[in-house]
Amino acid sequence: MQDIGRSKRAARSFSLDDVAIMPTRRTRGIETVDIDWRIDAITFGFPMLAAPMDSVMSPATAIAFGQLGGLGVLNLEGLWTRYADPEALFEELGAASDQVTTSRLQEIYAEPIKAELITERLRQIRDAGVPVAGALSPQTAQKFAGVVENAGLDFFVIRGTAVSAQHVSNATEPLDLARFIYELDVPVIVGGCATYQTALHLMRTGAAGVLVGFGGAATSTNAQVIGIEVPMATAISDVAEARRDYLDESGGRYVHVIADGAMGHSGDIVKALACGADAAMLGVPLARATEAPGQGWHWGQEAWHESLPRGRRVRVDQVGTLREVMLGPSHSPDGTMNLVGALRRAMASTGYTEVKAFQRIDLIIH
Amino acid sequence: MQDIGRSKRAARSFSLDDVAIMPTRRTRGIETVDIDWRIDAITFGFPMLAAPMDSVMSPATAIAFGQLGGLGVLNLEGLWTRYADPEALFEELGAASDQVTTSRLQEIYAEPIKAELITERLRQIRDAGVPVAGALSPQTAQKFAGVVENAGLDFFVIRGTAVSAQHVSNATEPLDLARFIYELDVPVIVGGCATYQTALHLMRTGAAGVLVGFGGAATSTNAQVIGIEVPMATAISDVAEARRDYLDESGGRYVHVIADGAMGHSGDIVKALACGADAAMLGVPLARATEAPGQGWHWGQEAWHESLPRGRRVRVDQVGTLREVMLGPSHSPDGTMNLVGALRRAMASTGYTEVKAFQRIDLIIH
Amino acid sequence: MQDIGRSKRAARSFSLDDVAIMPTRRTRGIETVDIDWRIDAITFGFPMLAAPMDSVMSPATAIAFGQLGGLGVLNLEGLWTRYADPEALFEELGAASDQVTTSRLQEIYAEPIKAELITERLRQIRDAGVPVAGALSPQTAQKFAGVVENAGLDFFVIRGTAVSAQHVSNATEPLDLARFIYELDVPVIVGGCATYQTALHLMRTGAAGVLVGFGGAATSTNAQVIGIEVPMATAISDVAEARRDYLDESGGRYVHVIADGAMGHSGDIVKALACGADAAMLGVPLARATEAPGQGWHWGQEAWHESLPRGRRVRVDQVGTLREVMLGPSHSPDGTMNLVGALRRAMASTGYTEVKAFQRIDLIIH
Amino acid sequence: MQDIGRSKRAARSFSLDDVAIMPTRRTRGIETVDIDWRIDAITFGFPMLAAPMDSVMSPATAIAFGQLGGLGVLNLEGLWTRYADPEALFEELGAASDQVTTSRLQEIYAEPIKAELITERLRQIRDAGVPVAGALSPQTAQKFAGVVENAGLDFFVIRGTAVSAQHVSNATEPLDLARFIYELDVPVIVGGCATYQTALHLMRTGAAGVLVGFGGAATSTNAQVIGIEVPMATAISDVAEARRDYLDESGGRYVHVIADGAMGHSGDIVKALACGADAAMLGVPLARATEAPGQGWHWGQEAWHESLPRGRRVRVDQVGTLREVMLGPSHSPDGTMNLVGALRRAMASTGYTEVKAFQRIDLIIH
Repeated sequence: MQDIGRSKRAARSFSLDDVAIMPTRRTRGIETVDIDWRIDAITFGFPMLAAPMDSVMSPATAIAFGQLGGLGVLNLEGLWTRYADPEALFEELGAASDQVTTSRLQEIYAEPIKAELITERLRQIRDAGVPVAGALSPQTAQKFAGVVENAGLDFFVIRGTAVSAQHVSNATEPLDLARFIYELDVPVIVGGCATYQTALHLMRTGAAGVLVGFGGAATSTNAQVIGIEVPMATAISDVAEARRDYLDESGGRYVHVIADGAMGHSGDIVKALACGADAAMLGVPLARATEAPGQGWHWGQEAWHESLPRGRRVRVDQVGTLREVMLGPSHSPDGTMNLVGALRRAMASTGYTEVKAFQRIDLIIH
Repeated sequence: MQDIGRSKRAARSFSLDDVAIMPTRRTRGIETVDIDWRIDAITFGFPMLAAPMDSVMSPATAIAFGQLGGLGVLNLEGLWTRYADPEALFEELGAASDQVTTSRLQEIYAEPIKAELITERLRQIRDAGVPVAGALSPQTAQKFAGVVENAGLDFFVIRGTAVSAQHVSNATEPLDLARFIYELDVPVIVGGCATYQTALHLMRTGAAGVLVGFGGAATSTNAQVIGIEVPMATAISDVAEARRDYLDESGGRYVHVIADGAMGHSGDIVKALACGADAAMLGVPLARATEAPGQGWHWGQEAWHESLPRGRRVRVDQVGTLREVMLGPSHSPDGTMNLVGALRRAMASTGYTEVKAFQRIDLIIH
Repeated sequence: MQDIGRSKRAARSFSLDDVAIMPTRRTRGIETVDIDWRIDAITFGFPMLAAPMDSVMSPATAIAFGQLGGLGVLNLEGLWTRYADPEALFEELGAASDQVTTSRLQEIYAEPIKAELITERLRQIRDAGVPVAGALSPQTAQKFAGVVENAGLDFFVIRGTAVSAQHVSNATEPLDLARFIYELDVPVIVGGCATYQTALHLMRTGAAGVLVGFGGAATSTNAQVIGIEVPMATAISDVAEARRDYLDESGGRYVHVIADGAMGHSGDIVKALACGADAAMLGVPLARATEAPGQGWHWGQEAWHESLPRGRRVRVDQVGTLREVMLGPSHSPDGTMNLVGALRRAMASTGYTEVKAFQRIDLIIH
Repeated sequence: MQDIGRSKRAARSFSLDDVAIMPTRRTRGIETVDIDWRIDAITFGFPMLAAPMDSVMSPATAIAFGQLGGLGVLNLEGLWTRYADPEALFEELGAASDQVTTSRLQEIYAEPIKAELITERLRQIRDAGVPVAGALSPQTAQKFAGVVENAGLDFFVIRGTAVSAQHVSNATEPLDLARFIYELDVPVIVGGCATYQTALHLMRTGAAGVLVGFGGAATSTNAQVIGIEVPMATAISDVAEARRDYLDESGGRYVHVIADGAMGHSGDIVKALACGADAAMLGVPLARATEAPGQGWHWGQEAWHESLPRGRRVRVDQVGTLREVMLGPSHSPDGTMNLVGALRRAMASTGYTEVKAFQRIDLIIH
């Protein structure tokens, strides 16, 4: 803790950019590395989820991502559940240059969410035989929970900028997370959270996983607009401690810590796990795939808030197919391709064979 | 404290950019948040004042700002009190590009201040039925105090780069602040100050509020010219401690701490309050309004000093109407619109319902 | 050590850019400075090696570098040992602008290494009468060791991104460094390593020198791709401590610490020695010579990895002949020419006459 | 002290940019401020010297600077003492754009220094009735000392990149500073030095003042070329401690500490005094005067070193006459005009009336 001034102290917090992992005295062959990710009843080929953002996940890319071995999460409050045929809007948002204004995004997303579209989109994914996951915000979770549950899914994701277990409101009946999760017959992943206390409370609601983050990164302007910023390395390290304490308190329930956002390159994913995360939820790296619905653009939920938008629609390079982005081979030395190979290589180069041990690797601050 | 070298130590100081607020374990509905600001006998709709700068406040915008719920402060040493019809000069200063030189500013502002124009401008604001406030520098405060007081106003603002309670001069009779404030029949807001000691002394003069800052920010070049710099987060935190100590020493007089300058985006206002400020005096955010007299330019008093100018005339984007800038809705995700909504959202997202409690929120350094 | 968060601590690490050497109370005439470098049976005129990179060392430049007094190391896995006549490929790689893609590099370097070309290239250097050194990666060292040894050389360099004394693999029989070095009749220089522990283990294998670094610097993108970064000042200082401890443990065997990469200008070489290095292996400074095979471009081994390239081909200025770059005179005040003169000048200006003592000079952090 | 790594520790050092001065609880009228500078028998109107650099001081500008109240120091190893009529060369160096290469500078300055030109240039200044000062490097000081002394001057300046009291050389008889100064009948100002120890030794030689710095700043590339860097705030603070200790040790001899270089704007001069300097030797601020011989360019002695140049010729803006630069009025808010007024303003704004007390003002690190 450091003095800001006479009446305030603060802790220095670290982003993933501020840290790096250190080589150790051991190296391993890459074939010895196991990066399978087991959560609830399912084992994935790698510890990476696709973020429920319209520029990243459509029903089609969720299926493709699942077929590669990962968990694709569909945004159930996006264009696919507001419009029966959103293709023209994706064309507009993808093709246009900087001329798509925040006002236009606010207009497009003013269209109400349709329950029947939720059902249809989730069924499409389930029919493909891959794990099914959909995301709602805390504000809409209760309203559509039944629809979602009936549609059948493997993971229910409740994702907001700041999700707490203790939301107080006069206007609306706040979501009682503990009861909600208890009554739901599906494992829930919930966040964003960014502190030890919030994470501990979310873990106590019965969540299978918590998302660490506060409104993404590449597209978010929360720092400028509301002054809140959550350097990711510190946030993950704090929440990992909550996981450890809750594991003890609960007598053995292991809640997965999932870093959400602020990981633009494969090296960031490596660092997130090294800070204590069990898995990483990816936005911008997947928006760079040629199949990504954003077609070279990337935007998050905050970009279309009706009175206080806190996100940008940003341009991203299209670097290769979704398969190349995830599994390689890479033809670009900048951490945008072969994300899975990069994680395996990082672990092999530092002598680790599994993620759980890798979480203890030494970091440096630079 | 850190060693600069063998004969000097110094404390690390922090700007608002260096810090951010942290989420807490609680969130609230935005409708539960109360940001009313009560100072002296008046309650404002939000804790924000408009800075007495010619590019920001004209009689017309002071009225408009008051009607939105805030306190607009008119510069009583600006063009409106030097010229009966300053419109042509505003045209020149607003329309022109970079060609308006410092020399031209020095020329324009060489025109003397007229007492009758002070009277007229203040009456115009009072007639509109909004709270009236005008600002003079310490150098002219005594000379025009009678004029100002007779014109009738709710807050008298004495604003300079460095205002102390102990000014020593050979050439002129220095302003005796304590006596001046005692004799004046209007609450006084005085500053800028930047340290615990100066703030404490200013509080003892009987001021209702102290301005924290040293020559603004966006337009100031004090650091380059005279080597003085006052990182705002540290300054506010130090002055907030003076408020606490003076509250005790005075047996309960609460002097408002008003951050003045260095807040270009709504997130900065949030951080200023989080550091301990009761309210924020805004320059550049209001210069971005379409009605702002600066017409896309912004400049401060220091820009026209006759022998040692210490400020620039800078270009600002015009982002929306004054109402949109203050109350939204925002169509820009960069913290330039809906400043009031952003403050409410920041407090709601971190679980606070009032500013006084929000001053205790945890910060991080990044 | 500093807290990253509740479950992780990390040490601040320093790059050469973060530090500088301090003047002392003594200065010396430059003619009193002795920078000879003695390793194994050979004395070199200056403590600098040329890096085994295709853009830096050809048989011809290895000879030229040796004639100037240094140790040139030929890459035995580069174009000269894959192709009998690589000149056309060097033309393509050197002449072309940014259009040479990573894919093209991967294609060119897919050609297998030929044993007979290793023999031929090394003989060419030996025939010129200068010390002979060639480099292989740990992966190929065993396969070509016999060929290399028979070709006759003064130093065998085993150089990889991360080389450890304890490599574990399922797929291949890992290189047993200690046995390999013991059986080889040539002194071995081995690395990159970056930590005290790894360096100590490498020293125990019997190596004559260890390379400090992790995948070069100017061209490497390891930080972005796999999250590993090794700030050089800290790495050298750590490995220098291993040298000291091993010297004691071994009863007097002095293993040379050779900084490898991250030294773009002569001042960086000075700082590397000041941090504790005995010598510096140079890439980019030599790629700037007009004779350099890269012809104005520079790239490392990592640039052509088949599935996970971690290096860029970067443009460098051609500043003068190899002789001018090494011995001057310099006509460029930016640390790119007269590297040897710069080292001598730095030592003279701070009052040192030999490198061993210069390793103890005081540094500052800025 | 902080660990660089296991075998090295270093202190954090601060440049003038890293620090700023803080307001105090007192302000003063600017007319109460006294900035006279008394050294040896002479009192100057302000504590600023003009640096002996060809782009700054000609005989004519040395006279003009003296007439304004300062001490102009002529470079006795520059074009004015190498060439009888250097005007054409100044035209070439001033008029030309980037095309004047380091090679051309090396060529021009290869011309030998002429004793009779030293005599003539110094007489010209003396005849104008202003204090006379000339600078030589340690290498030439002995050779031309007699000439200089006979020409008559008020201050003899020995100025080099690194000047120590203990220079060891095989090739030449090193300058014995203590004897040299003892035998000379003129007060000597000597430097650059950058540490407590060197400064203390230089003070013991009998110097009237020591220059703090290591090869200027705006034009120097010492950091890149030889790895030496001397952050100015720390250097001044260290040398000021040597002044204090030597004052005690010598029983009352006060040696002036003169910051030399790294002060591009008036705020930097303020900070240098606040760190403990008695006066400031200025290069780039004076190169900005319309009369400056550099005609919009600035270069130092290191730019023309025959084998290892360590300085650039850099472009500077011409902002006003020498009188305007020093005494104002300023028409530029960037710290380039009215340097003297800026110092007075800084002291008045922080409540100081004399430099000696101002050296104790509090600093912040930002």
